[in-house]
Amino acid sequence: MGIDQTWNIRTGSMKKGERNLISDVPGVTVGHCTVSDGAVQTGVTAVLPHSGNLFRDKVMAACHVLNGFGKTTGLVEIEEMGFLETPVLLTNTLSVGTVSTALVEYMLEQNPEIGNTTGTVNPVVCECNDGYLSDIRGLHVTKEHAKEALGNCRADFEEGAVGAGRGMKCHGLKGGIGSASRRFQMDDTWYTIGALTLTNHGLLSDLEINGKQMGKLLEAGKEKPLSVNERDRGSVITLLATDVPLSERQLKRLCKRAAMGLARTGSYMMNGSGEIVIAFTTANRIPHVPATDVLSFGMLADDQMDVLFRGVAETVEEAVLSSMLHAETVTGRKGRCLQSLEKLLRQAGGNAALT
Amino acid sequence: MGIDQTWNIRTGSMKKGERNLISDVPGVTVGHCTVSDGAVQTGVTAVLPHSGNLFRDKVMAACHVLNGFGKTTGLVEIEEMGFLETPVLLTNTLSVGTVSTALVEYMLEQNPEIGNTTGTVNPVVCECNDGYLSDIRGLHVTKEHAKEALGNCRADFEEGAVGAGRGMKCHGLKGGIGSASRRFQMDDTWYTIGALTLTNHGLLSDLEINGKQMGKLLEAGKEKPLSVNERDRGSVITLLATDVPLSERQLKRLCKRAAMGLARTGSYMMNGSGEIVIAFTTANRIPHVPATDVLSFGMLADDQMDVLFRGVAETVEEAVLSSMLHAETVTGRKGRCLQSLEKLLRQAGGNAALT
Amino acid sequence: MGIDQTWNIRTGSMKKGERNLISDVPGVTVGHCTVSDGAVQTGVTAVLPHSGNLFRDKVMAACHVLNGFGKTTGLVEIEEMGFLETPVLLTNTLSVGTVSTALVEYMLEQNPEIGNTTGTVNPVVCECNDGYLSDIRGLHVTKEHAKEALGNCRADFEEGAVGAGRGMKCHGLKGGIGSASRRFQMDDTWYTIGALTLTNHGLLSDLEINGKQMGKLLEAGKEKPLSVNERDRGSVITLLATDVPLSERQLKRLCKRAAMGLARTGSYMMNGSGEIVIAFTTANRIPHVPATDVLSFGMLADDQMDVLFRGVAETVEEAVLSSMLHAETVTGRKGRCLQSLEKLLRQAGGNAALT
Amino acid sequence: MGIDQTWNIRTGSMKKGERNLISDVPGVTVGHCTVSDGAVQTGVTAVLPHSGNLFRDKVMAACHVLNGFGKTTGLVEIEEMGFLETPVLLTNTLSVGTVSTALVEYMLEQNPEIGNTTGTVNPVVCECNDGYLSDIRGLHVTKEHAKEALGNCRADFEEGAVGAGRGMKCHGLKGGIGSASRRFQMDDTWYTIGALTLTNHGLLSDLEINGKQMGKLLEAGKEKPLSVNERDRGSVITLLATDVPLSERQLKRLCKRAAMGLARTGSYMMNGSGEIVIAFTTANRIPHVPATDVLSFGMLADDQMDVLFRGVAETVEEAVLSSMLHAETVTGRKGRCLQSLEKLLRQAGGNAALT
Repeated sequence: MGIDQTWNIRTGSMKKGERNLISDVPGVTVGHCTVSDGAVQTGVTAVLPHSGNLFRDKVMAACHVLNGFGKTTGLVEIEEMGFLETPVLLTNTLSVGTVSTALVEYMLEQNPEIGNTTGTVNPVVCECNDGYLSDIRGLHVTKEHAKEALGNCRADFEEGAVGAGRGMKCHGLKGGIGSASRRFQMDDTWYTIGALTLTNHGLLSDLEINGKQMGKLLEAGKEKPLSVNERDRGSVITLLATDVPLSERQLKRLCKRAAMGLARTGSYMMNGSGEIVIAFTTANRIPHVPATDVLSFGMLADDQMDVLFRGVAETVEEAVLSSMLHAETVTGRKGRCLQSLEKLLRQAGGNAALT
Repeated sequence: MGIDQTWNIRTGSMKKGERNLISDVPGVTVGHCTVSDGAVQTGVTAVLPHSGNLFRDKVMAACHVLNGFGKTTGLVEIEEMGFLETPVLLTNTLSVGTVSTALVEYMLEQNPEIGNTTGTVNPVVCECNDGYLSDIRGLHVTKEHAKEALGNCRADFEEGAVGAGRGMKCHGLKGGIGSASRRFQMDDTWYTIGALTLTNHGLLSDLEINGKQMGKLLEAGKEKPLSVNERDRGSVITLLATDVPLSERQLKRLCKRAAMGLARTGSYMMNGSGEIVIAFTTANRIPHVPATDVLSFGMLADDQMDVLFRGVAETVEEAVLSSMLHAETVTGRKGRCLQSLEKLLRQAGGNAALT
Repeated sequence: MGIDQTWNIRTGSMKKGERNLISDVPGVTVGHCTVSDGAVQTGVTAVLPHSGNLFRDKVMAACHVLNGFGKTTGLVEIEEMGFLETPVLLTNTLSVGTVSTALVEYMLEQNPEIGNTTGTVNPVVCECNDGYLSDIRGLHVTKEHAKEALGNCRADFEEGAVGAGRGMKCHGLKGGIGSASRRFQMDDTWYTIGALTLTNHGLLSDLEINGKQMGKLLEAGKEKPLSVNERDRGSVITLLATDVPLSERQLKRLCKRAAMGLARTGSYMMNGSGEIVIAFTTANRIPHVPATDVLSFGMLADDQMDVLFRGVAETVEEAVLSSMLHAETVTGRKGRCLQSLEKLLRQAGGNAALT
Repeated sequence: MGIDQTWNIRTGSMKKGERNLISDVPGVTVGHCTVSDGAVQTGVTAVLPHSGNLFRDKVMAACHVLNGFGKTTGLVEIEEMGFLETPVLLTNTLSVGTVSTALVEYMLEQNPEIGNTTGTVNPVVCECNDGYLSDIRGLHVTKEHAKEALGNCRADFEEGAVGAGRGMKCHGLKGGIGSASRRFQMDDTWYTIGALTLTNHGLLSDLEINGKQMGKLLEAGKEKPLSVNERDRGSVITLLATDVPLSERQLKRLCKRAAMGLARTGSYMMNGSGEIVIAFTTANRIPHVPATDVLSFGMLADDQMDVLFRGVAETVEEAVLSSMLHAETVTGRKGRCLQSLEKLLRQAGGNAALT
């Protein structure tokens, strides 16, 4: 359920999608595997661009690195070839290797030609460091966890402290998975843009909602700090999906606008943060074995991009807040606890505190 | 005079520089030549990194293109070589060629070796399109205007509808030249970061100040619109200066944070906007004729960058607002008029309207 | 006339175009204005992607900087928007400003809407430093020279020490303008790729032809050096044209392969060399005022790109040699003389010297 | 042993290092683990920038993607932060995940602070597709193989069909690991540049040695083809090391020159090839915990870079040939066999065939 139905939070002016999730882009699904056991608070989240065979029917894609203190794998080939040929998996930083191997196995199983009669495959795995709350050194994520997330993909997915978001920390409180979508018309057709964020960035004192300094307001008068105000060593991963026909160049332009959404909740893109954006369109498909040498693609006229740029800023801003407002309080290693923004806001008076 | 002394506007929490201008970075000066005559409302602004011979004593520099719908010249060599060897000139889009030639002449005059016993020189000229207010097709800026701006450089420079900013339009109102600075300590030494912006971007309905939607508030109840809400075809140029020793890589990281400041006043980086950032440090100088093969440079430890990143966001946000709050109402071609935010705010009740 | 008809030089195995010039790509034309008067040996060359109104009917394009010690203007917008909306002009380094203004005037004249009812225009001007032979400090190129080059555009253009190539120095000998083309089939249709280079790079001792170290061979036994072996402060500009439908991403991939052609004649991409590549396709046109929001474009399947990559390497290698083999000996400022490779090769025994 | 001592092959004119290996850069070592068993012909190669604790004492580094059809992991952070904090591991494409996890475990073991009291670590793993010869779908490389390669690091390492090079195919013949080095003086001090390549690219018909078309010459007169001339789906990984003090920007400039070496043996950078370059300098170290905020670094004057650029081209060209000339004939899956260039050249008459 979108945060807009509960909370009186303004994140732009565009029309929202039905679920207000990235899965409002037809075909896109998301699945989680949450690993929660004492000092281990981590997991895997999978995003599927469509339900068919992604290797044989790739989606046009692009990526952009806002700040590269991150270990995401698979960007080199997205940049060169302009496509995504696997689901995108999200997990903790030190589990990228394991999850990457799981994704390779998943692709090999579905496509006996890979590495035999055709080339290899480019697994895309993004990450944030959940080591504040979780025993990241223990490498607790297994290949099975990754496959479980892939198996759980659906349009009506959960947000908050789930999947890869289980151990994440956003603006000093509990972060995780958030999502939002917007709708608009081009040539009399309705289109959708959606964002999904894995939030693990920012300081509490910088948190802004509705243009108010909510971080400082929530902290005021508290006897002990809500959050250890340590150096920002987090990250934020942003996935953007749309069904508007866009070229790789245009998808990259979308990615760059994620910064505008992040800034609006109080991010300064700190040194230790891996801020990575991947965008894809389900409208332009690239067959692994093309029937002709020259293919045909749709591309939006660039002077119509403004509505998409606005859509990116709005959905990213809302996805960050949604990740926090859907997250429960979680306690992890060394008894460390990250509090739920939703709970804190209710204590502070609910919607009244936001206006 | 910084806007902070007049207006109760919050743009972050860092300590401000003495003048709250880019010229708080020791050695940096700025000069204008304003061309204002009916349908011609344009000009040139010059930024000098230091008062010595820039060709022989270059400053380390980097650049970043946030959105490249722009005609700035000189970025290719900044990117490759990591230095700035001329002043940076700002003007209107179609005058880049003329101003570039003027800058070449200025450099040739000071350096008889250029193009004779040594190589050539890389003029850096940035631009925004002031064609809404000014007869840009008339190519009214001359080489003399550029040289006059260079001759006028001083630490205590004017902001607002002056120099290259004369014809610019920001968030639907009068834009122009704005600047701000911040101070902080590293290793017990005080350092400064400063920003100068040439603002020509954004819609009135998106303008935010102190987290409030001031654009919409100002517009409310007006009989006729304050601003023709046409498509955003503007741009914003951002120059960043510091005296912290930074490498070219680190200067580029600074540039990317300008987006965070722009977003905070309501920019969405629209399609038709050339958003270009150039950063330099006066602390690392590159001699044209080095005395030794291996030179020595200072570089901040990257985990100390956060204060600079915050400084960029704060100064860019403030510089945008400062450009508007210092700008008078200007009428130009076809009787078009861009109103002064300062005047509108006073009419709306002054500081009371901002809280 | 292609060098292949005179000289027994191997530059790959692909089928050559009819003229073996970039103008074998239908619609592409090239014009020169040569300025030759004692110490002044310079000029302008214009390349027109098609004969229509380029502003209203742009061609899809991309660019790549191999080495950025150069002052080319216009790349920022090509990179962002993926199109070329003016002819490309080539000239000497310090005349970029003047030629850029001339190109703006030329575009304003053809398009009364620019800067009035629509936005501005992005002039693309490339350069090399011809200061070894020509009085580059004198700024002898005028706007009229640029317009003359534009007026002289034709399919059957001259190569060698003409236009922008008049004063250039390649591998220590006379360089200038060179061109070549290749043909191939896709989906049973014949397509063409062509290159034009402005050559001003490299040392004589590094020059290779047919895999032989011809620079050293020509020099051997000479009483005085053929060439002052000073530091390489030159550049090489490469323009690539094709009629294959390619996306902006694919055009950028083409650009990168220019390095493979340059390396084959003995280039090491030295520090002081501006090596810039621009590629466009006449098959994908972008209307300034699109009739619909979503446009349709052709794109080659990427696994068919190899023949184009080979075509780039072959045509760039041949264009470099062609620029030298068409260039006459030229004497310029301070009595400096750059010798003709063609003359030297004939003296050395003609084709026999090459095998 | 360098190929120069056996074969009369010209790869430039610079002075070679003592071993003519990347390990001539003091401190650099290389180790292999070769996995060879019928249809399984693969392995891991490790490159250590120095013998100390790399995490605490990082080396300044940069990377560049010549062609990005590749799955190398770790580049995002090298690009942003300008350092390498782990050894670089090379393996087959589908084993990047496993090897990456092994490298994480190796780093965790050495550094108990990672993921506990400090942030995480950025494993760098490069790859080529050895699926022509090896059962790549079987995922036969284990974490133990990676650790064995790390344990085997030494200055006097083997080249050819060993380690990650075991199953690779270069110019249609047996490829693998090759290396070379060059020496030169700056400020009266001797410095070294070295290259190591993992070669899996190119067609036999394109192979050039000493400027001769050796691929075609070797093939001529053979009853059956020496090589299945299938589409180029390979890659080439290039690592560059030096002890010259260089900035991150300068290291990136080095990376770009790898193309010039690859072109000289007949590479055209084909579509399906992942051509990745990583460069580091042992002269600039970045402490994980800096003692001061501002650090001091050496940087070569850029106009002295030419000798390094030439050194890159020479060592990369030689490393490619060295990988082939050190490789034995290997038979792998489906009875496929890749022949040894060394054996073919001896059959063709040895050094006489090369002149």
